Amino acid sequence: MDPLRSPLLTDLYQLTMLHTYYRARMEQTAVFELFVRKLPEHRNFMMAAGLEQALEFLEQAQFGPEELEWVKTSGLFTPEFVTHLRGWRFTGDVHAIPEGTVFFPDEPILRVTAPMPEAQLVESRLINLIHFESMVAGKAARSVLAAPGRTLVDFGLRRAHGAEAGLLAARAAYIAGFASTATVLAGSKFGIPVVGTMAHSFVQSHDSESQAFLDFARAFPKCTIFLVDTYDTEAGVGKVAALAPALKREGIPIHGVRLDSGDLVALANSSRRILDAAGLTDAVVFASGNLDEYRLRELIDAGAPINGFGVGTSLVTSADAPSLDAVYKLQEYAGRPRRKRSAAKATWPGRKQVYRVSDASGRFHHDVVTVEGDCQDGEPLLIPVMRTGKRLGKPEPLKEVRARAAAQLARLPAGLTGLDTALEPYRVDISPALRQLAEEVDRAMIS
Amino acid sequence: MDPLRSPLLTDLYQLTMLHTYYRARMEQTAVFELFVRKLPEHRNFMMAAGLEQALEFLEQAQFGPEELEWVKTSGLFTPEFVTHLRGWRFTGDVHAIPEGTVFFPDEPILRVTAPMPEAQLVESRLINLIHFESMVAGKAARSVLAAPGRTLVDFGLRRAHGAEAGLLAARAAYIAGFASTATVLAGSKFGIPVVGTMAHSFVQSHDSESQAFLDFARAFPKCTIFLVDTYDTEAGVGKVAALAPALKREGIPIHGVRLDSGDLVALANSSRRILDAAGLTDAVVFASGNLDEYRLRELIDAGAPINGFGVGTSLVTSADAPSLDAVYKLQEYAGRPRRKRSAAKATWPGRKQVYRVSDASGRFHHDVVTVEGDCQDGEPLLIPVMRTGKRLGKPEPLKEVRARAAAQLARLPAGLTGLDTALEPYRVDISPALRQLAEEVDRAMIS
Repeated sequence: MDPLRSPLLTDLYQLTMLHTYYRARMEQTAVFELFVRKLPEHRNFMMAAGLEQALEFLEQAQFGPEELEWVKTSGLFTPEFVTHLRGWRFTGDVHAIPEGTVFFPDEPILRVTAPMPEAQLVESRLINLIHFESMVAGKAARSVLAAPGRTLVDFGLRRAHGAEAGLLAARAAYIAGFASTATVLAGSKFGIPVVGTMAHSFVQSHDSESQAFLDFARAFPKCTIFLVDTYDTEAGVGKVAALAPALKREGIPIHGVRLDSGDLVALANSSRRILDAAGLTDAVVFASGNLDEYRLRELIDAGAPINGFGVGTSLVTSADAPSLDAVYKLQEYAGRPRRKRSAAKATWPGRKQVYRVSDASGRFHHDVVTVEGDCQDGEPLLIPVMRTGKRLGKPEPLKEVRARAAAQLARLPAGLTGLDTALEPYRVDISPALRQLAEEVDRAMIS
Repeated sequence: MDPLRSPLLTDLYQLTMLHTYYRARMEQTAVFELFVRKLPEHRNFMMAAGLEQALEFLEQAQFGPEELEWVKTSGLFTPEFVTHLRGWRFTGDVHAIPEGTVFFPDEPILRVTAPMPEAQLVESRLINLIHFESMVAGKAARSVLAAPGRTLVDFGLRRAHGAEAGLLAARAAYIAGFASTATVLAGSKFGIPVVGTMAHSFVQSHDSESQAFLDFARAFPKCTIFLVDTYDTEAGVGKVAALAPALKREGIPIHGVRLDSGDLVALANSSRRILDAAGLTDAVVFASGNLDEYRLRELIDAGAPINGFGVGTSLVTSADAPSLDAVYKLQEYAGRPRRKRSAAKATWPGRKQVYRVSDASGRFHHDVVTVEGDCQDGEPLLIPVMRTGKRLGKPEPLKEVRARAAAQLARLPAGLTGLDTALEPYRVDISPALRQLAEEVDRAMIS
């Protein structure tokens, strides 16, 4: 059983509801939409990611022998239901906003149209995947905007929340504009460029720091970024500069140095001076160590001559906002629009479409959320991506998704590209047609 | 390739260092220790968890065809190294603090003693596993302490950071004292009790709320906790009360109601009154919806008659502290203690042991971190758990781990059991022997 593809990656209530629907033969078409109710504090936009993994899950999820065994021995379900699950597959349709697209609260980013029990069972995993990747993509986009022209690398695996988080965070960050990741399996799995330097332990395990640098350079002549802060940063850079002529004779260039602690502005300046004085003007200064988009902005504003940044924990945990208010809500069942009215959690009913209107310069001006079929000006964002359980088209190459994300960030209104809360949030209109539908649904409930 | 067991679940620099060690034949014994440098704000202790998954990984990780193919085609490594990786296995020893044990900053919770390249390669995944589970166990323990006698259920899968996070969070929360989880696969994989009620969509998909309750009760007579807030909470509880006599005639009891929105204190009180008035005094009131340990304390302080809580997002993301400052540092290589001296990141060198000293009543009084072999009063916390790559003994049953955690929480000094920062943090002494070793290492470095 591959745990990442198991349909038991769900909440028990999904299975009990499925059983109840099965007993009551309530298998008519349901429409669920996945959306985020509000922006986290200090965020001005979100970025869609995770659709690829969601579609993969929908195509592949099925109950294998281990899953069926658990359902059987749980004592909660009838034998007929267990037999029924044996043939369970997702056979529905999916519409979605393409990965790398910027989105805002109340805008559906994924819509599932499927027999009720199927649409219900997949809720937990769909949110689990799309919530996480979209959260990290949005977080990564902030670093990309804060550090234009700098090389950004995902360093987050070790403090990501488990292995899948590490892998998917690397993917989401790459989509949003990070250049590469340190996570090898993310390279192997997604084709993301993988980069690496050395660890403090590597330096410590050698009796001399210079010997450690030399060993490393000879083993990896293409990756000569030296970690210089194990003992004393400036002395470390000095040793790199001193080794440079000998390495040059061996045909090995010095690619740069990595700073991982201390006063990064001062150390970047002195490292740059030492490297330049040794004629190593092409060698880069790379920085890491508890960085986030605010630190990046600070370092860049302070004029620190840093060419690239490794961003880890804050990125992969989305530290300032480690969750989004992402939900997956029933909008229609058996041809009738539905709406949840719980206090402060009411939703807009029915199948929806989002239109994005740009200004003359191509910048996004505002969005309109409306009922499907109610045509509006602007570009419709939701497109069909799966029909009767099969994907429409091949997985989108990650480079194309990344190019889309870059184009999206370039079209953001200027007020939304900073790290602080925009004075004016992006405008998202609810169309008259959608408001009218909500009123009709309410009236039908009351009557 | 099972991504959760792949040795490519690592940072590229681990592989490049491994290659360098291989070339330089630097394969002497290294000792690494995993510890947390400081407590997150408002936390007074941490709880060890994740050892089981870490040992599983160490026993099972190996380079399969797909991994070797990536290493080969990356162009970074020599063919001899690829051949060498084919036989790579972890053959080292591991000492650890048992899962469910409370621990504090600077205390090693895991020690790896292995040939340098092996100890190095596994760093990323060891931190990845132990960091996450320990973080969630510590977070969960706070809810357990804040809500004594209440039933706590993990509801977090959907907003956990990926599938593995959802599964491991369920495990960590159960260790810390949660009663159960909603995540089915965590039940199937770890034997944790799984519980569930119903979703709003279930109620919405029925034309009448009462019919939804009835269908559900008949399908799951053992799980009759009704979600009552889809439209109007008090009306919903009223419908449950009205259905009770008919259900009783069918032999179906009312287990309770779940509130998921609104003013939980007021609604719990009115729900309790409605249930009691209908003679349903045994039915429980269960609450969920953006809860964390502070909300639990508030609700309990306000006297809300709530029997159990579903805690989700805040738990599985450890929302207030979504990472710990967990590191894995080289402490000894080739028989010589080592120490990192980077600014603000210096470490204590050598192989260490932690002794925990209790007072006459059995409460923890203070800990002493010292060099291994320097016997101290108190109970040594680190024990051998793996020798030459094989586990010593079978996996510990989760129930025993959970019992240990409960015993540990009961022995915490009273000042540490609250949600706010203790006036006096727990005392952790660094022994004279360890201080002396650090000085010796520094002198050896300088000379």
